[in-house]
Amino acid sequence: MLTVDAALDAHLEATREARLDSYKAFLRIPSISAIPAHAGDCRAAAAWLAGALSEAGLEHAEVLETGGHPVVYADWLHAPDAPTVLIYGHYDVQPVDPLDLWTSPPFEPVVVGDRMLARGAADDKGQIHAHVMAAAAMLATRGRFPINVKYIFEGEEESSSVHLDAWLTAERDRLRADVAIISDSGFFEGNLPAITLSLRGIMYAQIDVIGTAVDLHSGVYGGAVQNPANALAQIIAALKGPDGRVRIPGFYDDVVPLTEADRFALANLPFDDATYQENLGVPALVGEVGYTTLERRGTRPTLDVNGMWAGFQGEGAKTIIPAHAHAKVSCRLVAGQEPDRIFEAFRDYVDAIAPPGVTTRVELIGGGFPSLTPMDHPATQAAARALEATFGRAPVYIREGGSIPVCASFSTILGLPVILLGITPPDENAHAPNEWMDLGNYETGIRTFARMLDELIDLPR
Amino acid sequence: MLTVDAALDAHLEATREARLDSYKAFLRIPSISAIPAHAGDCRAAAAWLAGALSEAGLEHAEVLETGGHPVVYADWLHAPDAPTVLIYGHYDVQPVDPLDLWTSPPFEPVVVGDRMLARGAADDKGQIHAHVMAAAAMLATRGRFPINVKYIFEGEEESSSVHLDAWLTAERDRLRADVAIISDSGFFEGNLPAITLSLRGIMYAQIDVIGTAVDLHSGVYGGAVQNPANALAQIIAALKGPDGRVRIPGFYDDVVPLTEADRFALANLPFDDATYQENLGVPALVGEVGYTTLERRGTRPTLDVNGMWAGFQGEGAKTIIPAHAHAKVSCRLVAGQEPDRIFEAFRDYVDAIAPPGVTTRVELIGGGFPSLTPMDHPATQAAARALEATFGRAPVYIREGGSIPVCASFSTILGLPVILLGITPPDENAHAPNEWMDLGNYETGIRTFARMLDELIDLPR
Repeated sequence: MLTVDAALDAHLEATREARLDSYKAFLRIPSISAIPAHAGDCRAAAAWLAGALSEAGLEHAEVLETGGHPVVYADWLHAPDAPTVLIYGHYDVQPVDPLDLWTSPPFEPVVVGDRMLARGAADDKGQIHAHVMAAAAMLATRGRFPINVKYIFEGEEESSSVHLDAWLTAERDRLRADVAIISDSGFFEGNLPAITLSLRGIMYAQIDVIGTAVDLHSGVYGGAVQNPANALAQIIAALKGPDGRVRIPGFYDDVVPLTEADRFALANLPFDDATYQENLGVPALVGEVGYTTLERRGTRPTLDVNGMWAGFQGEGAKTIIPAHAHAKVSCRLVAGQEPDRIFEAFRDYVDAIAPPGVTTRVELIGGGFPSLTPMDHPATQAAARALEATFGRAPVYIREGGSIPVCASFSTILGLPVILLGITPPDENAHAPNEWMDLGNYETGIRTFARMLDELIDLPR
Repeated sequence: MLTVDAALDAHLEATREARLDSYKAFLRIPSISAIPAHAGDCRAAAAWLAGALSEAGLEHAEVLETGGHPVVYADWLHAPDAPTVLIYGHYDVQPVDPLDLWTSPPFEPVVVGDRMLARGAADDKGQIHAHVMAAAAMLATRGRFPINVKYIFEGEEESSSVHLDAWLTAERDRLRADVAIISDSGFFEGNLPAITLSLRGIMYAQIDVIGTAVDLHSGVYGGAVQNPANALAQIIAALKGPDGRVRIPGFYDDVVPLTEADRFALANLPFDDATYQENLGVPALVGEVGYTTLERRGTRPTLDVNGMWAGFQGEGAKTIIPAHAHAKVSCRLVAGQEPDRIFEAFRDYVDAIAPPGVTTRVELIGGGFPSLTPMDHPATQAAARALEATFGRAPVYIREGGSIPVCASFSTILGLPVILLGITPPDENAHAPNEWMDLGNYETGIRTFARMLDELIDLPR
């Protein structure tokens, strides 16, 4: 840990024990949002958090209703000519089963070596606790922030953030800012400081292929009618070419291409195809030609069957032509692509390639926008400077293939650039037994979050 | 009904009431082979049948053990220079559920108009009762048969004839004959007298496509690995071309081509594509180019997915790359094709076309030989003359797409040509509620079966 602000450091050194006690107290609240019996615990965690924000010296610390688990809000808005940052995290946690794989009870936090062990230690209570502690230390040592800050910590991230978009829409004025920082991601392999530049969006659809009202005898009718399962296989096979590219007309039209700098950054990450393949246990890595594995899984759109079913699935033989066949198909989307437009192109193409003799239905099940804040964005660079100043090395830039829905919501509803600045170790067992936080990351992360506020002072408004 | 043998006719007229009583007594025995609780009823039906054969004047009437439900055997072998015919049927019946759709109890036979209504009235107790009555009438009026006759009536046809092949193999000597007549098929649409010339065989296999040990997150891994469900769809789609032809190398090599006479006979059947399509409720009939619907479903091999499954099949969205994907695929086979050879070609082709990044397994689940007795076979022509002499019109020649396993067993184990001579109406509700037999078909059929024995006298031995 580097010394970047002597007063802040001294304060943090002096308050370490009390801070760990506070961290543990927060972790003891079993705020599992997906389990209705824990609704009261979620509310208790929100109240605890609002109290901690208020105690840190932030203003307007409130528990706000959303229709589901509440959002905790607080702000400090006394830097009239400076930018405003919106800081996001979530206080809810994943369920804990299977309980017997935990080495200690998930809601009785313990420090083992340099690790805090508990459900939520990393995802995401550890990260938001670090933000609150950064704010407390800054106000204790300086009495003010260099910029304006707003905090929102939600309670439904682990159960699909169902009420968040409506709440963001309703609270648009209160949440006005220049940039959002989401601390719900982590470091790269080997615990390298990292900034996540992009997340993919998604288009999720179902294809139904309908033949007859009931299954047919495959001997009596085989050869005379289209088989819906064969037809579905034909449709799916035609969606992608042997080059791994999606064949839907217009699919790639709006994709924001990678810059040379993007490709260089990905190429220089410590990542080994052979090890990755071996860990997955597959005979080969495959995907779109012309792109590396990291490019394909983080920066290129995909098309995957998530599920498929038709006819007889039991032991042995049943000789039928299934009456109908179904598939769930999703596309991961990258910057530039819009879920609705991709769905329309998908539906039109499926209709166009469906073989004769069956009826085809294509239905949109869900969608989410991708997000991207470029490496050269001033806020990205501010985050990079904060990481380098505190962790002693420039961050790597990574691209995540999955989605954090709130990230796209911040872009589309609030119109904010989003910086994904997280400090959890890459193998922290989030969503699994024995979740842990590296206490070095936690302590240095507090300094990173504080430094980030200093670095954002020059953000163009 | 035409008068073809005045003495036989007179006898049959005089014994009509007693015969219907006997028919009903046979139908009253609930010989459902698939339900273990009815094992005693199956044995009772066998005993009843052996008694009826013996009463008719046949010799060696016996109930023979098979390891399952028994076979009933009887013979008359006193025409030393004449051919021998083996007559086959089955005394077991289908289950009766759903019981509430029956207009009268399934095992309390009633005559309604010109129909006998009961489970088994047609399939197959009605047909074998007609054979026994034909034998009784012939022996009563002539004291002898023109040729040698052997009867075998099995009790497991409705539950896969599991013990029959081993029994046929063991009893090969006792069953020596020149031709087999199977009476377990029916007339054509509109109740036209019909001879079924061929049945298709089958090759049934399962394809397993294996990716990873567990499902993967489609966001985190999508684009980097092969998706087993997409891969399976590619494999299935590659098995058939847009012309409806199977692409497996060598698949059609051994197919016995249709003769011009075969095609002419099928083309002249009263069959209407538009009505057939409308009844099925499909937007089009599809299949191999260059063949009519009746040719495609009766005389050409097929490839159909019978079932298919992978990944998530529930409501909504689950964003995974399935760990594995599976399909049950079967080919209906026609004369000349052998199930084992077709499986090997299928397996080799699947292995050859499987995309990279997954492991593929192909397993044989079951197979059955096709059967064909040509239209110009002397026994086919004998059956045709018998039908024309009694029903007053030449039969139509049909090809069934399904399989009667015993048919192939008679060919392969006993080396016999097989004539499929059945007299049930085409819409008799076999396997369904309210099964019925047309009593006109039944009475005339008795004369047909008797006449058939006369017509076989010139069969080359």
